[in-house]
Amino acid sequence: MDFTIRPATLEDCKDISRMILELAEHEKVSDQIKITQKDLEQDGFSKNPFFQGIIAEVPEHLKSKTDHTNIGYSLYFYTYSSWKGRAVYMEDLYVMPEFRGKGIGKALMAKVAQLGLAAGCTQLNFTVLDCNKSSLDFYLKQGSWDLTSDLGYHCMRCEGEALEHLAQGDLKI
Amino acid sequence: MDFTIRPATLEDCKDISRMILELAEHEKVSDQIKITQKDLEQDGFSKNPFFQGIIAEVPEHLKSKTDHTNIGYSLYFYTYSSWKGRAVYMEDLYVMPEFRGKGIGKALMAKVAQLGLAAGCTQLNFTVLDCNKSSLDFYLKQGSWDLTSDLGYHCMRCEGEALEHLAQGDLKI
Repeated sequence: MDFTIRPATLEDCKDISRMILELAEHEKVSDQIKITQKDLEQDGFSKNPFFQGIIAEVPEHLKSKTDHTNIGYSLYFYTYSSWKGRAVYMEDLYVMPEFRGKGIGKALMAKVAQLGLAAGCTQLNFTVLDCNKSSLDFYLKQGSWDLTSDLGYHCMRCEGEALEHLAQGDLKI
Repeated sequence: MDFTIRPATLEDCKDISRMILELAEHEKVSDQIKITQKDLEQDGFSKNPFFQGIIAEVPEHLKSKTDHTNIGYSLYFYTYSSWKGRAVYMEDLYVMPEFRGKGIGKALMAKVAQLGLAAGCTQLNFTVLDCNKSSLDFYLKQGSWDLTSDLGYHCMRCEGEALEHLAQGDLKI
């Protein structure tokens, strides 16, 4: 299929916001989404952006049933390992259902890997849900490691009131 | 104990590099460390830094047996959730053994939380190893979530040849 992968611009935030919601609806977690188009514009396209993005785009004559030519995206950002140095983290990888199975998701992921290598990164990191067995198998087949199964890594998060307490040094011993 | 928490500077990279190695020796993984003082200087203190750091420092009269006044550190960087937006990730948290149990680690973590909140973050993320039960319990007690146990998050990594293949679009189906 004819498609291109290109850097996301400010003008893409409306479509990225739409696709974030589509992905969340598919995962039945749309009530969790607090991010708006405006947040994406501000957080990704200001002086010190919190993320970068790439877009999968099809020509006008191949547009989706819903009239979209921006039909997939990935958000990524650079991180750091105190063992191995520069790394890139892939936050999202999404292709609209009617465009799947055409190599677009793979092209998006390849692009994130290329951008990471070009920036001097030695690792591409991401998370996968346990229930998403097909993705987990796919990534393992590509030679990715499962740090949780192999080394016992736990992803931890502090948010809301617990984060406020932490910041105040108000720790429970 | 008398100590201060302050932003890390270029001049701290020698001590950060030393403490990264101390931490790795403690975890018996020092052969995994590829990062040098020069890498830290370049990656953390150039125009687009990959990380930021804070240092725990004691006055000269309280210096370590090995003559150091920089006795703890944390490295962190900003990340992004496409659900919740801005987040801060704590990569390392270390206090030299002879200075533990004095609230220095907690002060470092509180500072990362403060910096994150000040930057508009709603989440502090980090990883803990399964074998590090005491830390895991400590973080849970502070109200942190274990996304791996609770939601089935797997930390995944692609590196080395697998990353090169991925970048080349050379994917195994």
